[in-house]
Amino acid sequence: MALLVVGSIALDSLETPFGRREDVLGGSASYFSACASFFGPTRVVAVVGEDFPEEHVRFLASRGVDLAGLARQPGRTFRWKGRYEFDLNTAHTLDTQLNVFAKFQPALPEHYRDSEYVFLGNIDPDLQRAVLDQVRAPRLVACDTMNFWIESKRESLLRTLRRVDLLFVNDAEARMLAGEHNVVKAARKILSFGPRSVVVKRGEYGALFFSGDEVFASSAVPLAAVFDPTGAGDSFAGGFMGYVARVRREDPATLRRAIVLGSVLASFTVEQFSLDRLRSLTPEEIRGRYAEARERAHFDDLEVDLFAGNGG
Amino acid sequence: MALLVVGSIALDSLETPFGRREDVLGGSASYFSACASFFGPTRVVAVVGEDFPEEHVRFLASRGVDLAGLARQPGRTFRWKGRYEFDLNTAHTLDTQLNVFAKFQPALPEHYRDSEYVFLGNIDPDLQRAVLDQVRAPRLVACDTMNFWIESKRESLLRTLRRVDLLFVNDAEARMLAGEHNVVKAARKILSFGPRSVVVKRGEYGALFFSGDEVFASSAVPLAAVFDPTGAGDSFAGGFMGYVARVRREDPATLRRAIVLGSVLASFTVEQFSLDRLRSLTPEEIRGRYAEARERAHFDDLEVDLFAGNGG
Repeated sequence: MALLVVGSIALDSLETPFGRREDVLGGSASYFSACASFFGPTRVVAVVGEDFPEEHVRFLASRGVDLAGLARQPGRTFRWKGRYEFDLNTAHTLDTQLNVFAKFQPALPEHYRDSEYVFLGNIDPDLQRAVLDQVRAPRLVACDTMNFWIESKRESLLRTLRRVDLLFVNDAEARMLAGEHNVVKAARKILSFGPRSVVVKRGEYGALFFSGDEVFASSAVPLAAVFDPTGAGDSFAGGFMGYVARVRREDPATLRRAIVLGSVLASFTVEQFSLDRLRSLTPEEIRGRYAEARERAHFDDLEVDLFAGNGG
Repeated sequence: MALLVVGSIALDSLETPFGRREDVLGGSASYFSACASFFGPTRVVAVVGEDFPEEHVRFLASRGVDLAGLARQPGRTFRWKGRYEFDLNTAHTLDTQLNVFAKFQPALPEHYRDSEYVFLGNIDPDLQRAVLDQVRAPRLVACDTMNFWIESKRESLLRTLRRVDLLFVNDAEARMLAGEHNVVKAARKILSFGPRSVVVKRGEYGALFFSGDEVFASSAVPLAAVFDPTGAGDSFAGGFMGYVARVRREDPATLRRAIVLGSVLASFTVEQFSLDRLRSLTPEEIRGRYAEARERAHFDDLEVDLFAGNGG
């Protein structure tokens, strides 16, 4: 399927109302590749330090993740420390140590250059383009970003977006990027920046997909227990891109299924700390939750002769 | 169809980022009955003062609203003054003048007492039960409430809920009522208070419907322009109950259609100030937006043989 992801591989320290964890596996490329690998092999471009535990490498490799593009540099691995309040909606960054990530220059192994599906994780938009420059003929390029790049490297980000087919953003990022509060107007404006499609992620509420005149509204899986929202967005993108790369189609119906699969993968990720839930997750569980999402979203046509007076 | 609503009829003064209006028609019973009346006649129990413009009475009557239960008392009509910030999500109450509403004692005209479908708008839960006491054999009782009653008259509200089939609340109210942050857990707890079903309204995101083990997730209509969110919740309830009373069924598939119709009616209401959009709204437009909602929510089953390795 030739799916490539560039992003971070990190050691996260997390505080949530349900507990805390120190130096657990994290980073956009970790979540993305672990989710995408349910559908097929995934190529990772990332960097870790000398302190990165070998067990994490073994775990990703055991899922069929191609780690030929994982550089190991002198120094320490990228670390992120965050706290979630009781509502679990907002991550408060307590500490960020870029470490080896500060000098990350993504270099693609030769066999990665024929990748057809590319996900540019949330990194410096200059680096996102540096990766794209090394891919010969990508068929679908998707991209993530964040408020930091929207504010500090807007022009570079816009240059990246002109080469991107699909953008994943949350609603706050969509508003900031477009300079438009209404999310429908914001999405339309983002489509004028280059991408053919934009997925606006709305956390526990679901996602809106805009592509041309088409709008798809997907509700999130209603969860009675969310333990750790870290990685939800990258899991969403991983489920989405893994599926699309597997079926090798980009028609609207396929992209709708991809969005639901993305939200299903994200819904599993947040049930436990770090990538722990993904370690035990099975294809049957993914299929089951997808089927539940279909059931939960279904409603029928209206009856005829429904309205008072004229009008039918 | 014998649908009864008790609630407020008010004169609202509104400030939104898009303009302001003074003493326009408002109140839960106004929005509810104007929306429900698309499906059939609706009986209103409410009170207005001597200053209430006759044109509003004529408008509601022209829509087939039965106003035999509309009392006109000496004094001024209930007034609410509110302001919406740029995000339009939160109403800031600037002034509330209960006026004749302060001594409102709902009295049902004799022919109202056979009503089968009852909507208890957001009023004192003591008065909600006083209305129920006057209805002989209601088939479906739905209820709205707000943070004020949840905090100040919790025991009375719980007594009302034991006699209610379906509760409409927004997510903040659901959390407050249940004392539970997670909305899924909150809804389940509310079901233990009496109602068979609960609709958790989530504003621009949509609604979740809980009934036994059944969950229906409905996305709101994505609107590029929202002018005035006042009355959205009562329009939702009006569309919902008007439809259910029209078709006289309460099976799960019917209630799902009712929720989508509720969100469709609400989506029209917020497009203009006060009830103005409802004045020009046609059944064809309602049907059209319902059909769009179906199209927007649709996605197909997954392919077989999808996953890497075993698992199918």
